[in-house]
Amino acid sequence: MKTQSETGCFGGVQGVYSHASAATGTDMTFGLFLPPQAAQGKVPLLWYLSGLTCTHENAMTKAAAQGWAAEAGIALVFPDTSPRGPEVADDAAFDMGQGAGFYVNATEAPWAPHFRMWDYLTVDLTRLLFDNFPLDEGRQAITGHSMGGHGALTIAMGLPGRFASVSAFSPITNPTQSDWGRKQFTAYLGSDEGAWAAHDATLLMRARGFEGPVLVDQGGADQFLDLLRPEALAEAMAARRQDSVLRIQPGYDHSYFFVASFMRDHVEFHAKALARA
Amino acid sequence: MKTQSETGCFGGVQGVYSHASAATGTDMTFGLFLPPQAAQGKVPLLWYLSGLTCTHENAMTKAAAQGWAAEAGIALVFPDTSPRGPEVADDAAFDMGQGAGFYVNATEAPWAPHFRMWDYLTVDLTRLLFDNFPLDEGRQAITGHSMGGHGALTIAMGLPGRFASVSAFSPITNPTQSDWGRKQFTAYLGSDEGAWAAHDATLLMRARGFEGPVLVDQGGADQFLDLLRPEALAEAMAARRQDSVLRIQPGYDHSYFFVASFMRDHVEFHAKALARA
Repeated sequence: MKTQSETGCFGGVQGVYSHASAATGTDMTFGLFLPPQAAQGKVPLLWYLSGLTCTHENAMTKAAAQGWAAEAGIALVFPDTSPRGPEVADDAAFDMGQGAGFYVNATEAPWAPHFRMWDYLTVDLTRLLFDNFPLDEGRQAITGHSMGGHGALTIAMGLPGRFASVSAFSPITNPTQSDWGRKQFTAYLGSDEGAWAAHDATLLMRARGFEGPVLVDQGGADQFLDLLRPEALAEAMAARRQDSVLRIQPGYDHSYFFVASFMRDHVEFHAKALARA
Repeated sequence: MKTQSETGCFGGVQGVYSHASAATGTDMTFGLFLPPQAAQGKVPLLWYLSGLTCTHENAMTKAAAQGWAAEAGIALVFPDTSPRGPEVADDAAFDMGQGAGFYVNATEAPWAPHFRMWDYLTVDLTRLLFDNFPLDEGRQAITGHSMGGHGALTIAMGLPGRFASVSAFSPITNPTQSDWGRKQFTAYLGSDEGAWAAHDATLLMRARGFEGPVLVDQGGADQFLDLLRPEALAEAMAARRQDSVLRIQPGYDHSYFFVASFMRDHVEFHAKALARA
């Protein structure tokens, strides 16, 4: 692991690190915020998964999360959204290829060798973090924005027992029924839709739900609402009687101004769940 | 109007009054809480509509609302749930007849002459309240529990512009698709289902929505979930991009312990909307 930078931030440290990942076969970069409490011992970890086109840097600089995390004594990790580099396949569209890993392990050419973001996050980066930083592996929570909200919800439900709580900002909730999903799952996972179900938050909510609390915020003026399909997850959460809050926030679009506006609520939501974990 | 009782309560007055209603052709009884601020001038009014079997008294004594209303400077009105008396039709079932008005104007015998709760609330009691008490007619909000949550949502959407905000505790959200609804609407409104749509919160949400914010709380351990169908309203609110919050609260049943547990949030939600009205 290489330290790219470490900067004082809300009494703690905002770092950027890179490391070789066996899952992706590439070097990967991530941001990690350690709150001041990490100087005294292990702290809980909140994962933040980013959306299409983002690197590790967008949320780190624009989500206004570190101040609330410092107050709550929670670390934040900001992973990248795909493998990158000249040897990694790509696509001209912004919603395919580099910057658009969709948090799956690709099985199809030309994506299969490197696009393994599920394993990257849940195995490689997980081990690296808990082996190298003062983080409490028994107290993890996860959130994300847009494609990252999809990642947070599907990983949380896909790995029961690992996360105390999950939240999402304007997530892609039902990718098997959306142009943000069908195109990418066909390319990454193949045309057998049976393999897609493990990566659709609405289908996972219907089939198994989440053992902890769920918070979802969605901007009412989001320009991508027809692709995000919040109504599908809303129906599934209520039908399951899932411990959940879904808020439609009028006037907010899909941007980081929306994410930043409600970040305090999400950090406090996770802090409460992590305190019980 | 006759004063049945007036009692000091959180620095204000909890009164019980009765009056003759032209809509129902009977005497009707209601509770009214005036907060201490009403001694200085007109205050906003929050309507609380009760559920099956309730009179004006249940929420007045068990919902723990007056303390928060006193803090916010909001009056509370607790109407009855149906006309009553020996001359009024009734049914042996607890969910039909007296105590089960469903907030409609009945058109069918034997209910039609008295079961006109929509007009009773929105015309008769409305005029009586604003003509006799220090209440600001331009600042009204509405909430309710179960059948009363159904009433609050349908009246709020049915009278655009009258209410600044609407909330509900475990509402009957989709009565045209529920045994709590189909039986009563058939009896009160007749078998033409076209007449039912104006009294179904999910259908109203799909067709027109509400111009202000909506808050819905639903207990996850509610014994009547299959009759309440929160998933129908959840889907409709998210699909419309309605300014809304829907919370599934794990471990809570259908009782007033649930209502009381979240009453503070509801009063504060309405206070915020009324401050902008």
